[in-house]
Amino acid sequence: MKVTETIFDDRKVINYFDADLSILSELHDPEKIVIITDKNIERLHAERLAAFKVISIHAGEKSKVQSTVDRIIDQLLEMDADKSWIIVGVGGGVITDLAGYVSAIYKRGVKLGLVPATVLAMVDAAIGGKNGVNVGIYKNMVGTTKQAAFLLFDFSFLETLPRQEWISGFAEIIKHACIKDAALFNELENSSLDNYIADKALMSALVARNVAIKTDIVVNDEFETGDRYLLNFGHTFGHPIENIYGLPHGNAISLGMVLAGRISEEINNFYSDQQERLVALLTKYELPVKLKVDHAAILQLLKKDKKRSGSDINFVLLNEIGKASVAKISLKNIEDMQNQIL
Amino acid sequence: MKVTETIFDDRKVINYFDADLSILSELHDPEKIVIITDKNIERLHAERLAAFKVISIHAGEKSKVQSTVDRIIDQLLEMDADKSWIIVGVGGGVITDLAGYVSAIYKRGVKLGLVPATVLAMVDAAIGGKNGVNVGIYKNMVGTTKQAAFLLFDFSFLETLPRQEWISGFAEIIKHACIKDAALFNELENSSLDNYIADKALMSALVARNVAIKTDIVVNDEFETGDRYLLNFGHTFGHPIENIYGLPHGNAISLGMVLAGRISEEINNFYSDQQERLVALLTKYELPVKLKVDHAAILQLLKKDKKRSGSDINFVLLNEIGKASVAKISLKNIEDMQNQIL
Repeated sequence: MKVTETIFDDRKVINYFDADLSILSELHDPEKIVIITDKNIERLHAERLAAFKVISIHAGEKSKVQSTVDRIIDQLLEMDADKSWIIVGVGGGVITDLAGYVSAIYKRGVKLGLVPATVLAMVDAAIGGKNGVNVGIYKNMVGTTKQAAFLLFDFSFLETLPRQEWISGFAEIIKHACIKDAALFNELENSSLDNYIADKALMSALVARNVAIKTDIVVNDEFETGDRYLLNFGHTFGHPIENIYGLPHGNAISLGMVLAGRISEEINNFYSDQQERLVALLTKYELPVKLKVDHAAILQLLKKDKKRSGSDINFVLLNEIGKASVAKISLKNIEDMQNQIL
Repeated sequence: MKVTETIFDDRKVINYFDADLSILSELHDPEKIVIITDKNIERLHAERLAAFKVISIHAGEKSKVQSTVDRIIDQLLEMDADKSWIIVGVGGGVITDLAGYVSAIYKRGVKLGLVPATVLAMVDAAIGGKNGVNVGIYKNMVGTTKQAAFLLFDFSFLETLPRQEWISGFAEIIKHACIKDAALFNELENSSLDNYIADKALMSALVARNVAIKTDIVVNDEFETGDRYLLNFGHTFGHPIENIYGLPHGNAISLGMVLAGRISEEINNFYSDQQERLVALLTKYELPVKLKVDHAAILQLLKKDKKRSGSDINFVLLNEIGKASVAKISLKNIEDMQNQIL
């Protein structure tokens, strides 16, 4: 096991890498641990979860709504959970977002631990403290920013992860490479999904590297006033695409990155050969790069985007592979580019 | 108008005393202000609210639930409110708690202003950043701690306040005197409710003094690890009494203070003549001091109390008038005292 620490203002997040779920009982009084997970993980890892109190919900994005939060809170009250307890989310991004949100509001806040169990959650969703639920078709409209006390990375959860979930997770890894780490981009070009699936040590190092990238960004910008915004690369179009077409998050973000790269070519001197490398890398990792999208529907959703400020969208552009910046683009300008270049 | 500032860590809360609601439009872009209020206030102050976007809810504690929060969020989304907007709660404790909570979770947090419109909200509910909603019969089971950007005290709201609401608010004023300010206790003994209702300057000074008492406590203990806990004096029994008998908050707290004073006599050397003064002062301000309560039902609710830690309750006792302390009392011990002395 490898342990690192991140300091957010006065709060400390401890990362336990290559750890086993069972160490939870050394980190907190086992009687006061309640795990929030989904029914898939509960079924696949029943024996390992048996030592703890468990609240389990239906797997999938549809559960990421207030009514699920209401039911979890009812169960916490039934268990007589008080402020000395810890909530531990074990699962993918839906679970880490729900567990984080519940821990932020239950009795005005209880301790939180996260055990990300998908690639996506390990390299992205579990890191940085953002949590929340969707409202109707709008993603993450309600939530808070609250850091976990610890993150526990137990790679044995990846053994039961479907290939589509691996693929979806690699979209965020490629995103990190695009905005911050050209050397990682090269590594990904020279390796393959099957390599990472087969080689635990290689995957462990990749996760640690991505955790470090996201953590470095987030720790200096917890409430998203600066660099953290770069993490939205591919998400401005990606979220609407995810909503409209019901794609897995990573697949939608892949398409969003292709579109954002195209806009970067147009208005940010991002070289066409680099855009081609981006498209090739996404393709290599089995992510989609082409979809005939309904631009009017996307524009409609952009108007509800949290990233909007008045009639402008803060849009993340690539300068080159490994380097990104933010530009204010008016909704009108986006509409024009949708009609002319996308 | 008198302006003071309070610094919470790195955040600043500005207090505007003797101010008029209309100055809101100088504090924030009027197009991006949305007022949350109740239907009583909307009706009584329609003209003054007309300049702003308003979301109004049914008055009363029954509205302090998640379904109200859900509806407010739907309305904010319909208005296209984004993170550059401010939510301003205009009302009593129910409204300030709801507005605070919504501002903490909508789009992961937007700016908050509070305009407390009852005595209770001015001296207590609006100060300190606690917010939340009830779950079933349990009070404030869900919420956050989030400071407002500003508090605006417009005393003209008190002109339409029913006498029962004045009485209820004075319970918290007497509580402040009990735990922190013996001189205030004397002032209250030598004055009367009618004096404060009739004399705006006197009331303004009383509110400012109580704001200062609560602010001083809270600013050094935002997340209730120390002195802030004293503010729960009278509330450990008061909340269950409020729930079971449906009393106004202040009336229930009055009964809770009498019971806590009685326990203080028994186990904390609180003098009987001081307990008599407490009972006399509450009576003078038309607050109830006697009720044949169902102790078993109260005990049942204490088990769900946020203030519980395992099988102990952190209980606020008086040492003398103007001075309080916290003792851990087991639920068993409380049950014994219920049977023997209360």
